[in-house]
Amino acid sequence: MNRNEVTEQVVLGRLRRGLTWQELADAIGRPLLWTTSALLGQHPIPAELGKVLVGMLGLDESAVPVLAAPPMRGGLPTAVPTDPTIYRFYEALQVYGGAIKEVIHEQFGDGIMSAINFSVDLQKKPHPSGDRVVVTFDGKFLPYQWDSARD
Amino acid sequence: MNRNEVTEQVVLGRLRRGLTWQELADAIGRPLLWTTSALLGQHPIPAELGKVLVGMLGLDESAVPVLAAPPMRGGLPTAVPTDPTIYRFYEALQVYGGAIKEVIHEQFGDGIMSAINFSVDLQKKPHPSGDRVVVTFDGKFLPYQWDSARD
Amino acid sequence: MNRNEVTEQVVLGRLRRGLTWQELADAIGRPLLWTTSALLGQHPIPAELGKVLVGMLGLDESAVPVLAAPPMRGGLPTAVPTDPTIYRFYEALQVYGGAIKEVIHEQFGDGIMSAINFSVDLQKKPHPSGDRVVVTFDGKFLPYQWDSARD
Amino acid sequence: MNRNEVTEQVVLGRLRRGLTWQELADAIGRPLLWTTSALLGQHPIPAELGKVLVGMLGLDESAVPVLAAPPMRGGLPTAVPTDPTIYRFYEALQVYGGAIKEVIHEQFGDGIMSAINFSVDLQKKPHPSGDRVVVTFDGKFLPYQWDSARD
Amino acid sequence: MNRNEVTEQVVLGRLRRGLTWQELADAIGRPLLWTTSALLGQHPIPAELGKVLVGMLGLDESAVPVLAAPPMRGGLPTAVPTDPTIYRFYEALQVYGGAIKEVIHEQFGDGIMSAINFSVDLQKKPHPSGDRVVVTFDGKFLPYQWDSARD
Amino acid sequence: MNRNEVTEQVVLGRLRRGLTWQELADAIGRPLLWTTSALLGQHPIPAELGKVLVGMLGLDESAVPVLAAPPMRGGLPTAVPTDPTIYRFYEALQVYGGAIKEVIHEQFGDGIMSAINFSVDLQKKPHPSGDRVVVTFDGKFLPYQWDSARD
Amino acid sequence: MNRNEVTEQVVLGRLRRGLTWQELADAIGRPLLWTTSALLGQHPIPAELGKVLVGMLGLDESAVPVLAAPPMRGGLPTAVPTDPTIYRFYEALQVYGGAIKEVIHEQFGDGIMSAINFSVDLQKKPHPSGDRVVVTFDGKFLPYQWDSARD
Amino acid sequence: MNRNEVTEQVVLGRLRRGLTWQELADAIGRPLLWTTSALLGQHPIPAELGKVLVGMLGLDESAVPVLAAPPMRGGLPTAVPTDPTIYRFYEALQVYGGAIKEVIHEQFGDGIMSAINFSVDLQKKPHPSGDRVVVTFDGKFLPYQWDSARD
Amino acid sequence: MNRNEVTEQVVLGRLRRGLTWQELADAIGRPLLWTTSALLGQHPIPAELGKVLVGMLGLDESAVPVLAAPPMRGGLPTAVPTDPTIYRFYEALQVYGGAIKEVIHEQFGDGIMSAINFSVDLQKKPHPSGDRVVVTFDGKFLPYQWDSARD
Amino acid sequence: MNRNEVTEQVVLGRLRRGLTWQELADAIGRPLLWTTSALLGQHPIPAELGKVLVGMLGLDESAVPVLAAPPMRGGLPTAVPTDPTIYRFYEALQVYGGAIKEVIHEQFGDGIMSAINFSVDLQKKPHPSGDRVVVTFDGKFLPYQWDSARD
Repeated sequence: MNRNEVTEQVVLGRLRRGLTWQELADAIGRPLLWTTSALLGQHPIPAELGKVLVGMLGLDESAVPVLAAPPMRGGLPTAVPTDPTIYRFYEALQVYGGAIKEVIHEQFGDGIMSAINFSVDLQKKPHPSGDRVVVTFDGKFLPYQWDSARD
Repeated sequence: MNRNEVTEQVVLGRLRRGLTWQELADAIGRPLLWTTSALLGQHPIPAELGKVLVGMLGLDESAVPVLAAPPMRGGLPTAVPTDPTIYRFYEALQVYGGAIKEVIHEQFGDGIMSAINFSVDLQKKPHPSGDRVVVTFDGKFLPYQWDSARD
Repeated sequence: MNRNEVTEQVVLGRLRRGLTWQELADAIGRPLLWTTSALLGQHPIPAELGKVLVGMLGLDESAVPVLAAPPMRGGLPTAVPTDPTIYRFYEALQVYGGAIKEVIHEQFGDGIMSAINFSVDLQKKPHPSGDRVVVTFDGKFLPYQWDSARD
Repeated sequence: MNRNEVTEQVVLGRLRRGLTWQELADAIGRPLLWTTSALLGQHPIPAELGKVLVGMLGLDESAVPVLAAPPMRGGLPTAVPTDPTIYRFYEALQVYGGAIKEVIHEQFGDGIMSAINFSVDLQKKPHPSGDRVVVTFDGKFLPYQWDSARD
Repeated sequence: MNRNEVTEQVVLGRLRRGLTWQELADAIGRPLLWTTSALLGQHPIPAELGKVLVGMLGLDESAVPVLAAPPMRGGLPTAVPTDPTIYRFYEALQVYGGAIKEVIHEQFGDGIMSAINFSVDLQKKPHPSGDRVVVTFDGKFLPYQWDSARD
Repeated sequence: MNRNEVTEQVVLGRLRRGLTWQELADAIGRPLLWTTSALLGQHPIPAELGKVLVGMLGLDESAVPVLAAPPMRGGLPTAVPTDPTIYRFYEALQVYGGAIKEVIHEQFGDGIMSAINFSVDLQKKPHPSGDRVVVTFDGKFLPYQWDSARD
Repeated sequence: MNRNEVTEQVVLGRLRRGLTWQELADAIGRPLLWTTSALLGQHPIPAELGKVLVGMLGLDESAVPVLAAPPMRGGLPTAVPTDPTIYRFYEALQVYGGAIKEVIHEQFGDGIMSAINFSVDLQKKPHPSGDRVVVTFDGKFLPYQWDSARD
Repeated sequence: MNRNEVTEQVVLGRLRRGLTWQELADAIGRPLLWTTSALLGQHPIPAELGKVLVGMLGLDESAVPVLAAPPMRGGLPTAVPTDPTIYRFYEALQVYGGAIKEVIHEQFGDGIMSAINFSVDLQKKPHPSGDRVVVTFDGKFLPYQWDSARD
Repeated sequence: MNRNEVTEQVVLGRLRRGLTWQELADAIGRPLLWTTSALLGQHPIPAELGKVLVGMLGLDESAVPVLAAPPMRGGLPTAVPTDPTIYRFYEALQVYGGAIKEVIHEQFGDGIMSAINFSVDLQKKPHPSGDRVVVTFDGKFLPYQWDSARD
Repeated sequence: MNRNEVTEQVVLGRLRRGLTWQELADAIGRPLLWTTSALLGQHPIPAELGKVLVGMLGLDESAVPVLAAPPMRGGLPTAVPTDPTIYRFYEALQVYGGAIKEVIHEQFGDGIMSAINFSVDLQKKPHPSGDRVVVTFDGKFLPYQWDSARD
């Protein structure tokens, strides 16, 4: 079973056993979005946590070292996502990406928001006209810096 | 001057006059990211605000009605962005997009975060190991709903 | 069996048993196009309805929770559809998409037709020179609105 | 001035003169969406109507024969539209395209909805939870038919 | 067995049994190119004909209803065909497509050659310098016509 | 003026002067589709014919040698054509391309229809249910042949 | 076993049995590159030769008619080849393709080098600074010729 | 004038003055295909040769240093060439590329034909059934070699 | 003059004045590859350095603030580079990218080499069989780290 | 088992047995990155080394000749890599590729860095602000050279 096959087993095992992502995250004491993303094949899962998850989901033990290896990341099946729930984030990039870039440069200087030293959070928040999905992308600012190793 | 040409003039006018996006936003009393995005060709700008901006940026008056029309949106020059600052958000979608989708469904049910009833905010926040870029996507939850017009 | 495999089983089961989509929709009391789309992998099907459909189509019971989960949507095998029946709708977008956008903006203001709060209907209507396919896309107008959650 | 340049002049002329698409359609007594689509470069405009429009929009007379020629159609700047207002229709195809195909075949037999013997209509319709955009695609059913010319 | 798998079985069955496409077409009394195209997955094959073909090709009976359903059409494995025999037709479109369009408009007015009310024929014809492949595309002219259903 | 610019001038000159493609073809005594294709940038036009055409169309004399050079061929602006009139031929390839290939092989052996030793003809032919566009692709059969030059 | 599966069996059979392509070509008395290309799925292999090869490679007899049928050609897994050995030929086209076109036109007139009446040869040739790969593409010149079949 | 504009001037200047590529190559004493490729923007042209060519073609002197700089290479306007004369070479790669790779490995070991230490030649050669285009790709064999610089 | 136009002027100005990239880098006391990359539109150039460079290259003063703004990065004209000198680095990624990923993970853990806190160096180094191009990519290791801002 | 299947077995065998790439490289006395790349399907592995590796990884003996054959190279699953660790190298090409090209030409003349006579090295190097990944691409300079074989 390669990582893709393990991911597919995770998806099906979760549905078959009626588990929520929250229950899986709680079982290993990790953040919800990190756990979900890791189980969908985007992060390595340390073996001791992998054992717990594999047990809950009814997978074979041999999945544990596969889950523990850094995966080949990239979870969108097409370069432009077709699923509407995911597409809206891509659309937001099409509409606000240029502005976000300009404002990062204006407030921080030339550089980027790290997607590695990074966490993401999702909250359900109330609003008079209906609940809102609030997703926070939180990454360390990395300035362009021309450093080299010291020998 | 079509909208693309106006956008190019905005970019050059801002640099030539040494204006910040914040100053432009303040001048019209609108949020920073909305203003920047609009000036980059992604939102219509009401004529009375357009006049102020056109004046500050040294553009021709004829740009005002062009700025006021709903634009053909979509600001990325390639389907997958090449600019590193923008790419990191695309990468975050590749790594966390599937998880965000699952968690939205788990917490709200089947549906999406609107990218239309939507605002985006960017904050510079401190952290012991360095400042962080915190970008909040805040959209109304829209459940899949099979409604029809009443005749 | 993942969702794609379930979809394939649905397609074959329907042919093998000689069922119409209308019969399947009637059996669960849902609109025809919603049911067809859901069975083709584009909508979650509540478990109690899924049980009925799985029984009619001769699928394994284990398909029920898979059908009940919000699917990764997007049913065209290529970005530009090659099937002539589907392509004509894409072609209509190429020819009338820009006009539809302009007229939405002229009549409603800046915003979109929702594809989430949305229903679609198909009728066979008479005409002296031959029957017509009349497809109605009916979505709530969503104005661009810069709202944020209240904490 | 080739057709693309004429289209661009139409877009700018309309904004400069503050004309609505409805006023342009009324002036030539043609349906709104047909007129808008034609002025956006998707249909030939008979010379006598072209003259009226060219006058209203302040274009050069030489645009009349260019407007009258059948254009190279296809108005989306990218194969997958990036503009949110247009994208929603593409998304609807991704989600409902397969179902529409199946239901056309079930109700009419093997064939297509013509996009040539075709009209499209857009109405603003009320609904308790907000106005709706109702777009009707209305095309003649064309059955697959293996005919040949008679010599 | 889905339609793709049936098509693959058709291709192998024909080779294994040493049948020509002509023999298959003759057996069901349908035109050669129609039969070949249908067996390659591009047209539904009525059940009574499907039974004959399935028998000749040594396929399972269960293929009959699959062959009888309108297929998801589109037989080129890549958008631009790589097989030289098929590519030459694509090349002819690259070189003569624009001219064909102009001449259709000049002789018929604005509209298209239908690919639905359509037949295609292939003849081997002599010529002093070598036999020629003569392929005739024969489709009903469809003028652009802004019709609507009568309620 | 490079060839693309000459082509654009041809297109506009023809409209401005109200000439038909047939008149242009007649003036140089060449087949209609050859002439149209050549004037659209797909074939070199011998200088003596080029002079006639340039005169009729009101182009500059300097276009003559540009028209006389073998052009960089390929007239579709996108790999998959978006114009409906041209698309139908692409669609016919998607549906019948595989069958045409099989029948060429069955009737001629392994090889292709040449698109170089090739002519194309378009006729308007009557049919009780409406006129038909009949396009004939007529190319020399070229068998795969492993020849080499003799030194 | 379809042709792709046969090709894969050829590749593995050859390695397992330690055969060279030269030995396979010698066994059937055909040119080396023709044989290799045919065994890689690009040419039909007459049944009597196919039997010899199938025997040498340890394939099932049922592969013989599959090998004998004209294949769907096109052996590159991606439009732009990623394998460096093959890529260099694509690169040569990028750098010299335009020049080759011009020189063919200058020396032969308007037309092409046939890739059907065509052979290719590869020699290892000495040079003081290291052996050279010399690949000769040898195709019949085909002038653009507007011929038609005689009825 | 950047390199692309210089190339366009070269193409037009050659036609205007009625020069052959051979005359241009002879004037600078360089091989025909090298000269043609260089003038089409694919090789730097030493200043002393550039002056001769610029004079013959009637270009501005300022083109000389532009011609002398190593260009951004890559002369095909699309990844898959559309021009038939160039396409045949791409097709040959599709059909024989895999075989060429295998035979290079069998005769030379693992490695490539260099496209840098490389020349290409084109000859018109006779054959009883018609002249042939013989193109020779001649590149140094480069074995995969894991060398490193010595410090 | 937007940034792309400035870059083009830089390229032409350097050639016209016969300056080396090294001379330009020396004039502003910055590393060679940083300077070259910045002048090719990939880094902002502080105004005081920009003034020096603009003077040396003969550009207009108005280019200085344009050079000083963080650019929209991404310098390859196509997703897969066609220029052979640049392509070799892409090819190295195709061949060694997976291995580099594995070894980074093995030696550092899960994470990446930063391309922001990053420098690149190019040296000409001797070797008995010929000089070597030695390019060093030197980036800070960034471990995947699930940090969040502190409010 | 074809090469892709062997590669997959290598990846899983390594994880199952808890081996490091370094241990595998040490076992056969080859450089780390070469060994890793070869085991990931990018280089042939001589049979005597293949036997050692196959034994360590618990693969079937029949994998040895498959590993020994020059593979179809190209290890990225998409043209633009989605995995962040690999993407950073692609990004570096987007930002520095043009500059590297210019500096190679300035220091060596017209030509390329070979990716065949090439080695790559990866070191973990210290730096006050954190360890650095230092990757060295080291390839022989190959000048453009118009050589031909001597007959």
